[in-house]
Amino acid sequence: MALLYGSSYQIPGTSPGALIAPADQPAGEAVLTLTRFDAHKVAEAQHVTPEECQGWLAEAAAAGQAVTGQAVTGQAVAGQEGDRKEPPPAGKHPGQPIFWLHVSGTPDADLARRLQDSLGLHPLALEDVMNGGQRPKVELYDEHLFVVFTHADYSGLGLRLFQTSLFLKGNLVISIDAGDDGLFRPVRERLSRGGKLRQLGPDYLLYALIDLIVDHKFPLLERMGAEIEDLETDLLEDPPADANRRLHRMKRHLLLLRRQQWPEREVLNVLLRGDKDMGIGKKTLVYLRDSYDHAVQLMDLLETYREVVTELQNALMLASSNRLNDIIRVLTVISVIFMPLTFIVGVYGMNFDPAAGWLNMPELGWAYGYPVVMIFMLALTAGMLWFFRRRGWL
Amino acid sequence: MALLYGSSYQIPGTSPGALIAPADQPAGEAVLTLTRFDAHKVAEAQHVTPEECQGWLAEAAAAGQAVTGQAVTGQAVAGQEGDRKEPPPAGKHPGQPIFWLHVSGTPDADLARRLQDSLGLHPLALEDVMNGGQRPKVELYDEHLFVVFTHADYSGLGLRLFQTSLFLKGNLVISIDAGDDGLFRPVRERLSRGGKLRQLGPDYLLYALIDLIVDHKFPLLERMGAEIEDLETDLLEDPPADANRRLHRMKRHLLLLRRQQWPEREVLNVLLRGDKDMGIGKKTLVYLRDSYDHAVQLMDLLETYREVVTELQNALMLASSNRLNDIIRVLTVISVIFMPLTFIVGVYGMNFDPAAGWLNMPELGWAYGYPVVMIFMLALTAGMLWFFRRRGWL
Amino acid sequence: MALLYGSSYQIPGTSPGALIAPADQPAGEAVLTLTRFDAHKVAEAQHVTPEECQGWLAEAAAAGQAVTGQAVTGQAVAGQEGDRKEPPPAGKHPGQPIFWLHVSGTPDADLARRLQDSLGLHPLALEDVMNGGQRPKVELYDEHLFVVFTHADYSGLGLRLFQTSLFLKGNLVISIDAGDDGLFRPVRERLSRGGKLRQLGPDYLLYALIDLIVDHKFPLLERMGAEIEDLETDLLEDPPADANRRLHRMKRHLLLLRRQQWPEREVLNVLLRGDKDMGIGKKTLVYLRDSYDHAVQLMDLLETYREVVTELQNALMLASSNRLNDIIRVLTVISVIFMPLTFIVGVYGMNFDPAAGWLNMPELGWAYGYPVVMIFMLALTAGMLWFFRRRGWL
Amino acid sequence: MALLYGSSYQIPGTSPGALIAPADQPAGEAVLTLTRFDAHKVAEAQHVTPEECQGWLAEAAAAGQAVTGQAVTGQAVAGQEGDRKEPPPAGKHPGQPIFWLHVSGTPDADLARRLQDSLGLHPLALEDVMNGGQRPKVELYDEHLFVVFTHADYSGLGLRLFQTSLFLKGNLVISIDAGDDGLFRPVRERLSRGGKLRQLGPDYLLYALIDLIVDHKFPLLERMGAEIEDLETDLLEDPPADANRRLHRMKRHLLLLRRQQWPEREVLNVLLRGDKDMGIGKKTLVYLRDSYDHAVQLMDLLETYREVVTELQNALMLASSNRLNDIIRVLTVISVIFMPLTFIVGVYGMNFDPAAGWLNMPELGWAYGYPVVMIFMLALTAGMLWFFRRRGWL
Amino acid sequence: MALLYGSSYQIPGTSPGALIAPADQPAGEAVLTLTRFDAHKVAEAQHVTPEECQGWLAEAAAAGQAVTGQAVTGQAVAGQEGDRKEPPPAGKHPGQPIFWLHVSGTPDADLARRLQDSLGLHPLALEDVMNGGQRPKVELYDEHLFVVFTHADYSGLGLRLFQTSLFLKGNLVISIDAGDDGLFRPVRERLSRGGKLRQLGPDYLLYALIDLIVDHKFPLLERMGAEIEDLETDLLEDPPADANRRLHRMKRHLLLLRRQQWPEREVLNVLLRGDKDMGIGKKTLVYLRDSYDHAVQLMDLLETYREVVTELQNALMLASSNRLNDIIRVLTVISVIFMPLTFIVGVYGMNFDPAAGWLNMPELGWAYGYPVVMIFMLALTAGMLWFFRRRGWL
Repeated sequence: MALLYGSSYQIPGTSPGALIAPADQPAGEAVLTLTRFDAHKVAEAQHVTPEECQGWLAEAAAAGQAVTGQAVTGQAVAGQEGDRKEPPPAGKHPGQPIFWLHVSGTPDADLARRLQDSLGLHPLALEDVMNGGQRPKVELYDEHLFVVFTHADYSGLGLRLFQTSLFLKGNLVISIDAGDDGLFRPVRERLSRGGKLRQLGPDYLLYALIDLIVDHKFPLLERMGAEIEDLETDLLEDPPADANRRLHRMKRHLLLLRRQQWPEREVLNVLLRGDKDMGIGKKTLVYLRDSYDHAVQLMDLLETYREVVTELQNALMLASSNRLNDIIRVLTVISVIFMPLTFIVGVYGMNFDPAAGWLNMPELGWAYGYPVVMIFMLALTAGMLWFFRRRGWL
Repeated sequence: MALLYGSSYQIPGTSPGALIAPADQPAGEAVLTLTRFDAHKVAEAQHVTPEECQGWLAEAAAAGQAVTGQAVTGQAVAGQEGDRKEPPPAGKHPGQPIFWLHVSGTPDADLARRLQDSLGLHPLALEDVMNGGQRPKVELYDEHLFVVFTHADYSGLGLRLFQTSLFLKGNLVISIDAGDDGLFRPVRERLSRGGKLRQLGPDYLLYALIDLIVDHKFPLLERMGAEIEDLETDLLEDPPADANRRLHRMKRHLLLLRRQQWPEREVLNVLLRGDKDMGIGKKTLVYLRDSYDHAVQLMDLLETYREVVTELQNALMLASSNRLNDIIRVLTVISVIFMPLTFIVGVYGMNFDPAAGWLNMPELGWAYGYPVVMIFMLALTAGMLWFFRRRGWL
Repeated sequence: MALLYGSSYQIPGTSPGALIAPADQPAGEAVLTLTRFDAHKVAEAQHVTPEECQGWLAEAAAAGQAVTGQAVTGQAVAGQEGDRKEPPPAGKHPGQPIFWLHVSGTPDADLARRLQDSLGLHPLALEDVMNGGQRPKVELYDEHLFVVFTHADYSGLGLRLFQTSLFLKGNLVISIDAGDDGLFRPVRERLSRGGKLRQLGPDYLLYALIDLIVDHKFPLLERMGAEIEDLETDLLEDPPADANRRLHRMKRHLLLLRRQQWPEREVLNVLLRGDKDMGIGKKTLVYLRDSYDHAVQLMDLLETYREVVTELQNALMLASSNRLNDIIRVLTVISVIFMPLTFIVGVYGMNFDPAAGWLNMPELGWAYGYPVVMIFMLALTAGMLWFFRRRGWL
Repeated sequence: MALLYGSSYQIPGTSPGALIAPADQPAGEAVLTLTRFDAHKVAEAQHVTPEECQGWLAEAAAAGQAVTGQAVTGQAVAGQEGDRKEPPPAGKHPGQPIFWLHVSGTPDADLARRLQDSLGLHPLALEDVMNGGQRPKVELYDEHLFVVFTHADYSGLGLRLFQTSLFLKGNLVISIDAGDDGLFRPVRERLSRGGKLRQLGPDYLLYALIDLIVDHKFPLLERMGAEIEDLETDLLEDPPADANRRLHRMKRHLLLLRRQQWPEREVLNVLLRGDKDMGIGKKTLVYLRDSYDHAVQLMDLLETYREVVTELQNALMLASSNRLNDIIRVLTVISVIFMPLTFIVGVYGMNFDPAAGWLNMPELGWAYGYPVVMIFMLALTAGMLWFFRRRGWL
Repeated sequence: MALLYGSSYQIPGTSPGALIAPADQPAGEAVLTLTRFDAHKVAEAQHVTPEECQGWLAEAAAAGQAVTGQAVTGQAVAGQEGDRKEPPPAGKHPGQPIFWLHVSGTPDADLARRLQDSLGLHPLALEDVMNGGQRPKVELYDEHLFVVFTHADYSGLGLRLFQTSLFLKGNLVISIDAGDDGLFRPVRERLSRGGKLRQLGPDYLLYALIDLIVDHKFPLLERMGAEIEDLETDLLEDPPADANRRLHRMKRHLLLLRRQQWPEREVLNVLLRGDKDMGIGKKTLVYLRDSYDHAVQLMDLLETYREVVTELQNALMLASSNRLNDIIRVLTVISVIFMPLTFIVGVYGMNFDPAAGWLNMPELGWAYGYPVVMIFMLALTAGMLWFFRRRGWL
């Protein structure tokens, strides 16, 4: 994303749903992976095309209809897991298999059009997929459910946000992730291990993906929290020189995350309110409520962090002003002490007549008076410099 | 607009809908352009009068009635595109043609009255059109739908806001744009190229205009975002002298934009809630929801910008206070070092007796002692000046 | 009003609706003007008493009943406009005439009681009328509709707020204005010119008065906006000494206005929601919605002003801190340059032996050495003073 | 109340409604006064016990039943006003008399239990009565209506808040006031004078008490407003040394008041919404709405004060920073002028040879040179001290 | 809890309700205590296992059914109070006994699974129990009601928050408290003393526990309030050096508490709205409303504290800036006085010719001139140091 605060957008005035890639976005090497599973089997085909997906979906639908229409035909297709460019096998038993198409990377204009044609995705949804940096949202088109989320990455490079789009269309779940960091690997692993994920419907798969996106922010916020605590310790003891910059950076990151988290919570709320047409079953809703709780908790953490960082900024301001007071107090004391003294020695020019009494500046007559004074002054300067350095003033 | 923060208004106590142009507004050279189109043809007549529009509308209505009433009469009128002062041709086939009257510039009192008389626009709506700087709003009069939006221009001249008023009255869409910058040119071009815009009804044209006004702010905000990022980089490294002014300017612009964007979102929301009498079809509502999402995204961006700019002001405050601390620390250190030294040399007046020992200020007896000291002091001053300039203190 | 921030109040514990004038309020010379009009005629009687009003109202009611009950009796009363102490003439034709009683100035306890007795106004409403500084509100008593608004005056004297109370009781509209500045003169003029105001009912008259009160604030806010822009220009270039005070004053004014504007908008909203018993017709509601839009726009402007003034305070804070930095930097540079130099000349006491070489301070031996040095120092001082004055430091 | 910000509470884990007095609260010398009145008579008994109240209430109820059940029995009881320990007389005519029991001071555990037993007050309500500093609230128990308010006292001692509890139970109104300042005396006086208060029911008495509590804050806020205006005048001209402390104190007081006023408004709102079981008649509701308006107005005033005080803090901050700038500017100018001069005189040590010319420091050879210079310096110092004192720097 | 601001969480992507203890949480030595009581008896068994609980519950259910189904069978089981590992005795009379299972400490994965299996707790609820630091919430599962609260501990160690989870399942109340401080001891004591707690149902026990958790924060807030008042007194008189740090700490604590208190109030509100399936009776709701009032009061206190602390920070800022002004004013005055004096004495080098007059610096010729001046300067320095120390500048 070129602009940290911005989002991609179509050139104003272009027809809606025109599927033109934004100028600054390179033709991504989006990779499609299709997973087909039911309670008994999992098969995965990598580097598929939208047209192949369409074919396999149609085949499965036909098989499903055959099964329900007549009787068990039982044309079992041996599932070779991980087999490339081979149609994933249909389940041995009746009951529709579930398809999960994962697109890694942002689709370019050509791929978007093919996805629209083959899988019947809505052009406005695809426009949102192509123009990254959308606000998290949920949209129920006639054709399918469309959800946009953001997943975040916080590392040495700072905060990076990636758009993740999810579609739920009958037995097909499509996930399109602009990031390249294997966000959904744990779901893939759970799928291969079996369990609830295999037995429940496509809505549960959708939930599992959403849950992962939401929970993905916990370790991230934990890292941020640790950073804030470090900053806090440093700052209340001895504010480092870059405290201001670090606080500013942290606050900006929190701000950007909150901008995503707020609507994300809203999206989950809309999903929870459970419009029937959305295709999310009652059983899945119980779990989704859990995700919602997590999203609220994240929001809560973000707000707390923000308030703590603001407090730290206040504390830094006060510390900085205290420090200034300290320095100026020293300056004032020194000045106030030496100014009258200097005035007095100025008055007398210290021209006391050594002849008038042996106590009158006998130093002036000493053979080494001058070098002794010079050396004394040098030592005094060195001492003060050492003292200031120790106090951290230099 | 004379006043940046203000809006034009009628003199208090004048009768409502009195159509008196505000004092500071010159009798604009408002130009009317009528476009007539159906699925097959587009014709455009420039510099038309409201009365001519009325005539052509009546003619089209009569033709339409004729068509639906009896049979296809087929009096095709050859459409000469761009032909001035000629009535735009009626469509060859039955089905009402759609009219788009675009007024470029703010109408004066005379034009407003003629628009009221010929096209039946509500006087309160026309009052709002004439008094620029209105808050974006939507009003459903008995006669027509009336929408006020603002479109913004951000260039070297700073931020300028122009009021754009839209009317939807049966088959007629009227757009009145106080700006002079061809805001709606892309729609005109899409019209001439055909496509959905030609096939769908006047509500879709209205949507296309609204969509353009909304999306028009994306490049503007992108430019602002880039400016903010520049400011941020500058500021955290070495705050430029005019940082304060630039931040203030930016915040004011954001404030003015937000003041428009907030009710604009509201207007879109009202349109979306889809009161039937508004004449906006279900098909168009899907697209309008997209515009609403964009408006929310813009609002979001504006809020984020505002918060970032506020953060930058805080950071500038802290940086400024840090800088002050640094300078005063140097001052203090120098003072604290030299004050005692000066006191000491004052005490002795450095009247050491050169006769008492050869180490006692032999410089005083040197032939070039004075010029050497003078030159040394000159060099010292030059060195310090060079150092301060390098540190940026001068 | 004695206290800027306060409002008048009854002594706690007095019976509600006791109609006792607050202590600090002088027995106002409230002047009553009764206007009687219908579509054909307008008549105005000044310095009337509540009892006279009651009489004329009863007469008109009787005439109206006579008319509707039997036939046109046609006892035309010649209306002498401006005729004092004469009953305003009844309309020539059937149809109830409309009465507008305007009270200029705050009524004292006696007048309030007579208004209550003669015209049947509710004692709680009259209590609010007498105790100025009420929050704008609308109250629907059994007897009549009661609305409190505030109108503002912003001139050399600062901001002054006056309470304006409106009653709507059948055909009678009563307006009581604590101010003395002919606020309603434009309505009076429009009445004499005829037009909608004469043809529509008492609710439209009420609207016209409300509209005037609302719109009255536009020029006021325009003046404030111009002042803010002036302040902004001054402040970003060279903050004047009284910037702080002016900003504070402005903010306080905005605060007081907002305190009135917020409930005023609410009142208009309540009127709009159109409880039937309020007696406001559908036709008038369309216009009232326009007033509501204006009230929202005013609120909007006030908020924007407030934010701009806050921004200006921030900018002033930053500018002040920048200025301090500049001054201290100069101080530091000068100190840092002269302190070592003074130390060095202190060391040598500049006792170079002129005898040791002709370059050793020959000035000391010059005949005009002392006056030349003195004059040079004088010139230097003058130069620096001139420089500082030019830089604005003195 | 021991803690300004706190409230009393039961030790956590004690049974609810256990009626244990909080540790820090002394066994108050709560005094009970029972007033019995109807349209014809008022009688007051001081220092009554709960049991006596119970007896008289039962007697009145029996009499009332007798009256309504059979016929007028007419056992008139002579009412001796102010008679101690005598049962207040029943009204001469049928119609229930109204009882008002006022408890001055916080009841201790024993009294609370007796109130519970004799008069049937709910233990949870009594717990709230005993634990002062409750949030204003309204609670409708099966037995009675229970309302908690706060009345405030603002004098030389600062702000003090007292809890006032009100019960409405049939014909009995109970008021328990932790303060000792005769808050309800005006009601007592109005009762003795007759009027509406005597004719209307117990709900109107409740209203009269509530109205007094609400209106009681007007003079208090007036005093605060006057103080704020004083502070404002002082501050914008010449900030006094204790401005910071006074502003802080004022803000804290406003904060504490607002904490009470906010729920107080809520309580009135709940009473207004007029749950039937509450026993507040329609006639009283009209008056209660007036009290609600007053509560809103108070809230409004508090908010305005708070904002003004915040503005004053900002202004003080800016004034303080301006002052600092002024002082430092003077310091800088003086330093910048004298530093080079002192350097120059240092260079020459002013050792000009008086012998070289008569203009070379002839002062050194004058007989009174030294005392003249000393006196001149003394005069200069005195002059500067006088000047600084006049400028307020010392 | 490792992180102050964080909460424990499952590794993203793990199956929901997987019951895996978070990495940083040691396998707690959770201790289970089962209490069985009815109106007549209380028995307590410590160190029980979930399976034992299940057994006793089943037994009691069977006995209950037996009783209600047929007749009184009366197999009284002697209750040995405090008897370890013995089933708590069933009540002598018909009527279900109530069970309270208290788990002290956070259960580890094994215990959680056994609780799920034996007592039928929902896995998602148990997941929340194991991952401490949850947001207070209420969840109504099919199986049981689940409530999460936080109880706080504020001592020398700062603020510590512990999660307390409550389950209500038929006659069984389960409380799981991560803290180890005998929070619920008062309830246990009241149980053994009898009273309402023994006579009312399990919902009343639940209320008693909730009430304790809520009220537990009153003493904590009282302590905080006292600290704030101390800080306030210190700060307005003479800001201590660590004021900034203490204010920051206090604000952070308040922030963390508020983050818990806000949803806690919400939870109580949900419980109050009284969904029937929750199993909370009408009688208990009256008491719960009391708890809700307390929670609101706590929230109120927290907000007030936060505002006061913010005010104190402002006051500290202003005090710090005032102090700086004072110091700089002194510096300036001293400088402004001594600089011209030093200049003057520099001019004359004080080389007045003692020979020209007896008043010309006779001190120079005194025998003890030099030591006298030196001693005087020493005394002056000592005096100034003493003065500065007394003023608190050193």
